[in-house]
Amino acid sequence: MKIVIIGATGTIGSAVSSELEKKHEVIRVGYNDGDYRVDIASQELIQALFVKTGIVDAIVSTTGLANFGTLDSLSDADYELALNNKLMGQVNLVRLGRDYLNDSGSITLTSGITAWQPMQESLSVSMVNAGLEGFTRAAALGLDREIRINVVSPDFVRETAEAMGMGSIGVPATQTALAYAATVEGKMNGETVNARDYL
Amino acid sequence: MKIVIIGATGTIGSAVSSELEKKHEVIRVGYNDGDYRVDIASQELIQALFVKTGIVDAIVSTTGLANFGTLDSLSDADYELALNNKLMGQVNLVRLGRDYLNDSGSITLTSGITAWQPMQESLSVSMVNAGLEGFTRAAALGLDREIRINVVSPDFVRETAEAMGMGSIGVPATQTALAYAATVEGKMNGETVNARDYL
Repeated sequence: MKIVIIGATGTIGSAVSSELEKKHEVIRVGYNDGDYRVDIASQELIQALFVKTGIVDAIVSTTGLANFGTLDSLSDADYELALNNKLMGQVNLVRLGRDYLNDSGSITLTSGITAWQPMQESLSVSMVNAGLEGFTRAAALGLDREIRINVVSPDFVRETAEAMGMGSIGVPATQTALAYAATVEGKMNGETVNARDYL
Repeated sequence: MKIVIIGATGTIGSAVSSELEKKHEVIRVGYNDGDYRVDIASQELIQALFVKTGIVDAIVSTTGLANFGTLDSLSDADYELALNNKLMGQVNLVRLGRDYLNDSGSITLTSGITAWQPMQESLSVSMVNAGLEGFTRAAALGLDREIRINVVSPDFVRETAEAMGMGSIGVPATQTALAYAATVEGKMNGETVNARDYL
């Protein structure tokens, strides 16, 4: 398969790229580097990206910005970032990317554990993560040509936790990557795949 | 209790108002009429509303706009309506309204069955309904003064179905209203309450 990974230079995206490269041709897309670059907040740049990649068999998104903060500290701009970047940025990857997929291709988005295991500071993050899962369930009913869509819900990533001095909690990125491989190579559609199930 | 119901002139809101008026003082707020008027797309108008209502014991929202449409037919404006009105309109009721609640007060928002029972045409609706449920789970951890927040997920409303010539499917508004009474009068916090459980 020819697979484009958007967010390929991040902690999760790097691990997903390495995992999928074992069997497939991977196009790594980042914000600052990679084979190609994109800012998912821009529909024009998303469109330009797919013109460059051409037709692929799978689109994997491991990207999307949203800030943590409490009811007191989150600003309008914080909510807008979550909505315009992590949520609509990924929704627009679906709206624009589906035309660049082969029949029986797949799209995999990324939500996060805070959709279901919230924290006081995860307000806008929980909101858009759950929203991505709701969107995915509906989009799965409407994609044609046997194209599938799923969303991976990563747990806290162990490498990130260790880098932050929080100890060996969470799911290693290499294990998290197996959840993405499962959505790309499997038959599931409309599902939320929990990365911790691959621990 | 003194309860402000935003969306009180709609099919569900009217039934919720009638149910809660049996035991409580209800302030009915609508878009075009009611005791007071508000457009939840405007933070300024939300703020002005709560200045007028003063301190209350419960805020109930039965309002929020979002359009149905497919991946092909939904426009950027449709996604923006769902995000700015049904989702952020209700989130802003929480952000601004919590300062106008008595200790141990409550907030009840409205999502919808399509978060979990999607249709091809419910893309943006499923997205924001699920997003509201994710936001509510996180917000419940951060509200102080023992203030609670929940979200009711109405089924298709029987009166609406009958008016559309679809037959007697869905949950009657009078029954749907019992889900709202349960969140206002009960002890639950951070929960999604399915109106069909009250059928």
